This record gives sequence, structure tokens and C-alpha cells, in this order.
Amino acid sequence: MSVLNDVDGITRELQDRISGYQDSFARIFERYFEELRENFDGPADSRFTARSLELLGDLSLRGGKRQRVAFMYEAARLVTDQPVAGLDEAALSIELLQTHLLVHDDIIDDAPTRRGGPSTYFAYRAEFPGHPQTALGLALLAGDLAAFLSLRVLIDSGLPVPLKHALVDVQTRAAEATFVGQMFDLERDFPEIPSIELLNSVSDFKASRSSALAPMQLGLLVAGEDPAEHAVTLRRYALMFGISGQMCDDYLSLFGDERVTGKPNTADVRDGRRTYLISALLTAATRTERTRIESILGRPDCTAADVDSLREIACRHGVDRTLRAEMHRYAGLASKEASEWRDRWRADAVTFFERVPIWGVERTL
Amino acid sequence: MSVLNDVDGITRELQDRISGYQDSFARIFERYFEELRENFDGPADSRFTARSLELLGDLSLRGGKRQRVAFMYEAARLVTDQPVAGLDEAALSIELLQTHLLVHDDIIDDAPTRRGGPSTYFAYRAEFPGHPQTALGLALLAGDLAAFLSLRVLIDSGLPVPLKHALVDVQTRAAEATFVGQMFDLERDFPEIPSIELLNSVSDFKASRSSALAPMQLGLLVAGEDPAEHAVTLRRYALMFGISGQMCDDYLSLFGDERVTGKPNTADVRDGRRTYLISALLTAATRTERTRIESILGRPDCTAADVDSLREIACRHGVDRTLRAEMHRYAGLASKEASEWRDRWRADAVTFFERVPIWGVERTL
Repeated sequence: MSVLNDVDGITRELQDRISGYQDSFARIFERYFEELRENFDGPADSRFTARSLELLGDLSLRGGKRQRVAFMYEAARLVTDQPVAGLDEAALSIELLQTHLLVHDDIIDDAPTRRGGPSTYFAYRAEFPGHPQTALGLALLAGDLAAFLSLRVLIDSGLPVPLKHALVDVQTRAAEATFVGQMFDLERDFPEIPSIELLNSVSDFKASRSSALAPMQLGLLVAGEDPAEHAVTLRRYALMFGISGQMCDDYLSLFGDERVTGKPNTADVRDGRRTYLISALLTAATRTERTRIESILGRPDCTAADVDSLREIACRHGVDRTLRAEMHRYAGLASKEASEWRDRWRADAVTFFERVPIWGVERTL
Repeated sequence: MSVLNDVDGITRELQDRISGYQDSFARIFERYFEELRENFDGPADSRFTARSLELLGDLSLRGGKRQRVAFMYEAARLVTDQPVAGLDEAALSIELLQTHLLVHDDIIDDAPTRRGGPSTYFAYRAEFPGHPQTALGLALLAGDLAAFLSLRVLIDSGLPVPLKHALVDVQTRAAEATFVGQMFDLERDFPEIPSIELLNSVSDFKASRSSALAPMQLGLLVAGEDPAEHAVTLRRYALMFGISGQMCDDYLSLFGDERVTGKPNTADVRDGRRTYLISALLTAATRTERTRIESILGRPDCTAADVDSLREIACRHGVDRTLRAEMHRYAGLASKEASEWRDRWRADAVTFFERVPIWGVERTL
């Protein structure tokens, strides 16, 4: 049986590799926070500073899929399967930037939970019951701190200056794109129904660049390859993968199991987010249904029954099925893009990038 | 008449040099924002992104003393009076980081005004009257964006990589120190009366490092000098200058003219900030007065008459006079530190650093 036909075997291997990265990175990240707390250049007697490092550690170590980390290590493996210095620092930088984004995102969304535990913002709110402004300030500053820790971990590494600088270049670009994407994401919720082009552009800026493109660029850089020489294909892959992933997220935000996703599957409706799913729902709905949907969207007091009725309308029009098909289609496009890397890069890592978009969709459903 | 005795002449020259930097930097900063709006790598059709760049430009160009910019240019002049490449980029980086800090600071303080105009947060609140969470999100993201623009302006410069990297190193360290300092600043408002050591440590992290030390390090780096070789004296100067400056700010926050400072001189009292001034006031007050002060501090609805009564108590105990003397003392210590640079650096720039702390205090009073 050819390797390409043994889909179950490849999926098993993919899962093993991803869990391998999760496990080894968990230890690296834990050690990082231990050392940070010991060596941090802050005022010795500041409880608030120490607490912010604890909370950033809590959120960071509470998991997440570490998909970006896997992308970075596998991008290096496109070039070499030998150990190269700098991969762990790049992985730390990626996840610290992610921590920054999550902390600020939960302020923006007023979100109580994240990764199955309290968001940093709500952790502070619980600690300062009479002082909401202090809680907001500390969460905001903890997020700011995480952004710069994400750069300091590169700058403080013993890597050669040109490499460190190239890594900082990638990460600052990725961060900038994400902020813009998040603004665009907020803008998306204002027009009646956003177009698919607008939704794809949001995915590009908000997700593709920092979650897929930047990790691949970092991995290639550390492995000694110049990602600029492969800019077009990397961008294309990241975009298709990012769109597929965003569709999966949007799908889970309404149809997901809260115990698995770690966040309430009513939040998008309550917040009036015009996601891929909700935009498609509005487009497919009858005039009467649309009035009903609009009356529920963005209502802070909307009930579980309200959200259920939206799910029913979605299923009645096959919006869920269409979105699942679209996730698959974009994942397939990403996969096809990666298949063209076979002649320039190492086969087992190419297989990873070919397979991972489809695996991401399958895991969602 | 020796130069050192001609204090008026030196002050005039100092003011001329500072206004010179203000004027030339105003043009540089304006051009930067013009080019940013034209070339920004954001979604072409995103109004929210374009608006964030406008608001960041508004706040940035609305002025401020540009003291950090003057410090940076003068630090380069310690080494050479010849034009050197990179000074303008370093100045832009400093002020963009400052813009970031102001945008987030006004979220933390819930402050409606800044530099005599609306804070970015309140500008967004006015634009989204029914959507406070959107306004918060956009202000937070605009602040995040400014932080990374401050690094991108260095990375995108045509300077040699080792120099760019050294500048990014300084700026990321300064940012990190400031976030920690702001957390410590919030912590300061919780104990009964913070000690002078705690207040000085807050000044160190919150102000000295990013407002004095980092600009001097940047100027020296661009001029080809390694600031690490002068670390101790630069740190000492920045610390004394920073403490003096923080005392001036705290003084103005109660006794300043709102038309000059551009912010209400009741905010510190209303927010219950335990500044140098208010801590000294609590220490000097009688038991009865202290009860009265504590009943006013942190009350959102405190009146102008309430704040007036605090000013009266302060003056009665000479707290204002003592604080003025302390500002002078710390400014003098900074000045003395700079005077020891005469044997290693250019005289006219040394005179600037000798004179500017005292000038800062004189301007306050």
C-alpha cells in the first residue's frame, strides 16, 4: 500500500507528531515561566508584577492546540531533520504573542472564560471586586507585557544578530497584521451582511498571517532558508489554511461542544458577530427568519433557546452543511498548494503541511 | 562673564534648542503619518483601520513636550555634532511608543482628555455611542498597533542590521519596564501611604527608563557609542531626572493650570492616586484632616471645592513647599551627575543635560 493511500496511518502519525510537539513544548514553556519569575527585571517588592507573570503563566500553560508551534517546527523540518538552534525560542515567541492576543481579545470581547479557565481579565476582576478599572488596567498591562516578552525571548537568545533580527521582523509584522485584522473583525459586525471577500480578508489579517504564515517563516529562517524566496506559495497556503481554520472556529462557536472548546457556544450570537456561519445564515434565511435572527443577534440576554432556534434555522437551510463543504474546499486548496513543495523540500514535512488542513477540518466535525 | 554664570543665556539657548527639536520633529512626524496612511499594509477597504491611523496621528501630532526626542538628539550630540543617519527613525520610535503608552494609559485611567483634546478611547466612545465595548476594543487595538509601529519604524529603516537590532533592544526593554512601572503605580494606590522608596521605584520603572534612559541610549547608539560602557552614570542620571520629573507631574496634577497641562487638575484626587504629593499630604495631615482627605480620595463625584480643601490642607502644612524643594534637590543630583561627563563628551550637549532637569522644575513652578 502506498503511503499516500494509507490515510489512517498518516492521520495517526500526524496526531503523534502534534502531541509530541505539545508535550515537549509544554516543558519548554513551563521552564520559561519558572526562569522568568526568577530573573525578571521588575521591582523586587511589587506583588502586582509578580501576579501578572503568574497569570500570564497560567493562561499560557493551560494549553491550546499549539498548532502554531507545530507549524514552526515542521517548517524547519521542510529544510532539515537535524537539530537547529533557535527553534525553542521561536516557539516561545509564537506562544507568548498568542498569550498577548488572548489576554487583549478577552478584554475586547468581555469574555469570562478562555481555554477552560478564567480569562486574565476576569481573573483580575475576581481579585479586585470593588475596582473594575484596576482589573481592566492590570489585564491590559499584562497583555502588553506578554507582547514584549514575545520579542525579548528572541532578543535575549544567544542566536546571531541577523537571525534574531529577521525573527523579530516576522513577529512584529505578524502582530501588526493581527491588530488590523481584529479591527476589521469588529468592523465586520456593523454592515448588514459582510461579503465573502470581506470575511476572507478578515481571516487573512486576523488569523492567516500570525497563525500560519509567521510560524512557517520563523521555522524556515531558523533552519537557514530565506522565506522571502517562497513568499507567494507560503502566503497562498497560509491564506487557504487560515480561511478553512476560521470557518472551523466559526462553526464550533455555534455547533461546538463547550466542554471541548472551553468557551460558551452562545458567545458569537450574544455578541452579534457576523461570522462566516452567521453571515451565511442571514443570507439563506427567509425574510421572517431574518427578522427573528436579527432580533436575537447581539442581545446580551439571549437565551439558550434563542440560540437553539438559530441552529434550527441554519440546519433547515443546510447552512451548516454548506459551511462544512467550504471548510473542506479551502483545506483542499491549502493541501494542494503544499503538494507542490515536494520537489524543493523534505517529503515527511511536506506531507505534514498537506495533511494538516484536512485533519483540522475532520477534527472539527 | 563665564558661561556657567550666564544662567539666563543658557536657559534661553536651552529653550531655543528644545523648540528647534519640537519644530523639526513635528514635520518629521507629520510626514511619517502621511506616508503610513498611504503605504500601510492593511485591508484596502477597512474604514476602522484607516480611522485608527488617523486617531493615532491626531494624538501623536497634537504635541507633547517632545522631551524624549530632545534627549535623544542631545545624547547623539554628546558624541558628535555631525549629522548621523538614524536619529529621525529613533525619534519616531520614541514618540510612537509614547503614543502607545498614552492610548492605553487613558483606557486604564478612563481619561476623557489628553494633550488638550479627546483621548483616543473617548474619541471612539463618541463615535460608537451605543457600543462601549467596540470603542474599548478599537482603542485597545489602536494602542497595540502604535507599540508595534514604534518597532517597525526601526526595522523598516535602512540602517545596518546590528544598529537596528540594538535600537529595538533598547525600545523593547523600555516598554517592558514601563508596563511593570504602570502595574506598580496601580499597586501604589492600595497601601495606606506608600513609602518614598516605593514611590521612587515606581518613578524608575514607569518614567525614568523609557523617558530618559532609553532616549539617551538610542542617541548614543545612533552616534556610534556603546551605552553599556556608561551604564551606571546613565542609569543614575535618568533615575534622578525621572524622580524630579515625576514630582513635577504630581505637583501639576493638583496645583497645575488645566489650560497649560491639558488635563483636569482634579483627576489624581478623584482617582485616589497616592502620588508623591498626596502621600506627603497624608503623612503631614492631622488625624482629623487625614479622615477628611481619605473621604475625598477616590470619590468619582468629588467636587472642585473638595479638591480645593485638599490644596488648603497641603499648603497649611507646607507640603507644596517641601515637594518643590525635593524636585529641586533631585534635579540638582541629576545635574551634578551630568557635570561629570565633561571629560568624556562634548561640552554643549553636557551643558544641555546639566541644565535641563533644573529647567524642567523651573518651568513647573
